[in-house]
Amino acid sequence: MSKNQIILGIDPGTRITGYGIVYSFGQQLNLIVCGSIFMEKYDDHYDRLACIFDRVNDLIKEYKPTCLAIEAPFYSKNVQSMLKLGRAQGVAMAAALTHRLPVYEYAPREIKQSVSGNGNASKEQIADMLKHILHNDQLPEQADATDGLAAAVCHHFKTSHGINVSGNKKKSSWANFIKDHPDRVL
Amino acid sequence: MSKNQIILGIDPGTRITGYGIVYSFGQQLNLIVCGSIFMEKYDDHYDRLACIFDRVNDLIKEYKPTCLAIEAPFYSKNVQSMLKLGRAQGVAMAAALTHRLPVYEYAPREIKQSVSGNGNASKEQIADMLKHILHNDQLPEQADATDGLAAAVCHHFKTSHGINVSGNKKKSSWANFIKDHPDRVL
Repeated sequence: MSKNQIILGIDPGTRITGYGIVYSFGQQLNLIVCGSIFMEKYDDHYDRLACIFDRVNDLIKEYKPTCLAIEAPFYSKNVQSMLKLGRAQGVAMAAALTHRLPVYEYAPREIKQSVSGNGNASKEQIADMLKHILHNDQLPEQADATDGLAAAVCHHFKTSHGINVSGNKKKSSWANFIKDHPDRVL
Repeated sequence: MSKNQIILGIDPGTRITGYGIVYSFGQQLNLIVCGSIFMEKYDDHYDRLACIFDRVNDLIKEYKPTCLAIEAPFYSKNVQSMLKLGRAQGVAMAAALTHRLPVYEYAPREIKQSVSGNGNASKEQIADMLKHILHNDQLPEQADATDGLAAAVCHHFKTSHGINVSGNKKKSSWANFIKDHPDRVL
């Protein structure tokens, strides 16, 4: 059975952390909020981590999500960037775990596949698909924000009853979107 | 000028996280507590991260340290283990940052150099040196605990006035220790 969920989606990074919150009710999905946390104003690495924790904590207190969905790349050629990314993820997860929220992580490709039916979709295609799914043309242009939102939408599709996003239904949804928006095909 | 500090040292890991707390008063150093947080009982990765956050948070509330010193390897051949380590570090840092504690990180080799004058010292040599420095023969045998404690002691030496640990004074201290304990030379 599907259930009502308020899903906080996060795309953690030490420069910009994107987020999106959706209300998932059965197969229905409504956008609550979507935005970016900008940490470039802080030179100090720890100030950036503290900023992620504080802002994610604020979002949880304000919007009371029932779970955290996080975009989590599992591979990188650069060990250093993986350590930094792990820290940013850890801090965001800590904020959720202090509120006893369950955490779900999805690889970028899995999110793209789930949202658009195409694991190699471009950021623009994902953004357009999110506008289509959420019936909202006013989503932020900032890519990190839509990446966070996409993580939340992915979790909705993965858990909502009757919609197997990575299966045929989603593919047809993507196909319909292409049909409706031929100008978006690059 | 040197200052009074209560230093929480942490060696984060997702299996075992070691910690040690010392009171640093000028050149004097006293052991407050030293131990390990065992997470092997939790199968779930997030339960382990939550356990690190909760226990580090408890230690901060109980012992009121003035800073966090963290053992932080910067390199690894394995990207996956670096991501996991980054998360464990991030969670421990988040606990400190929520209490507005400054965070200092030291590479394992830097800690060994600082504590023993030898960046390639064995775990046994570090443990023996810590017993010597802290005038305490009752330190836990568990290596992670002494690694956490070593991070705290390293920060003391790095910040205490008049003791340049990685310089001559420490080398003579290490030399004296060898002289006093010839049986510990492997």
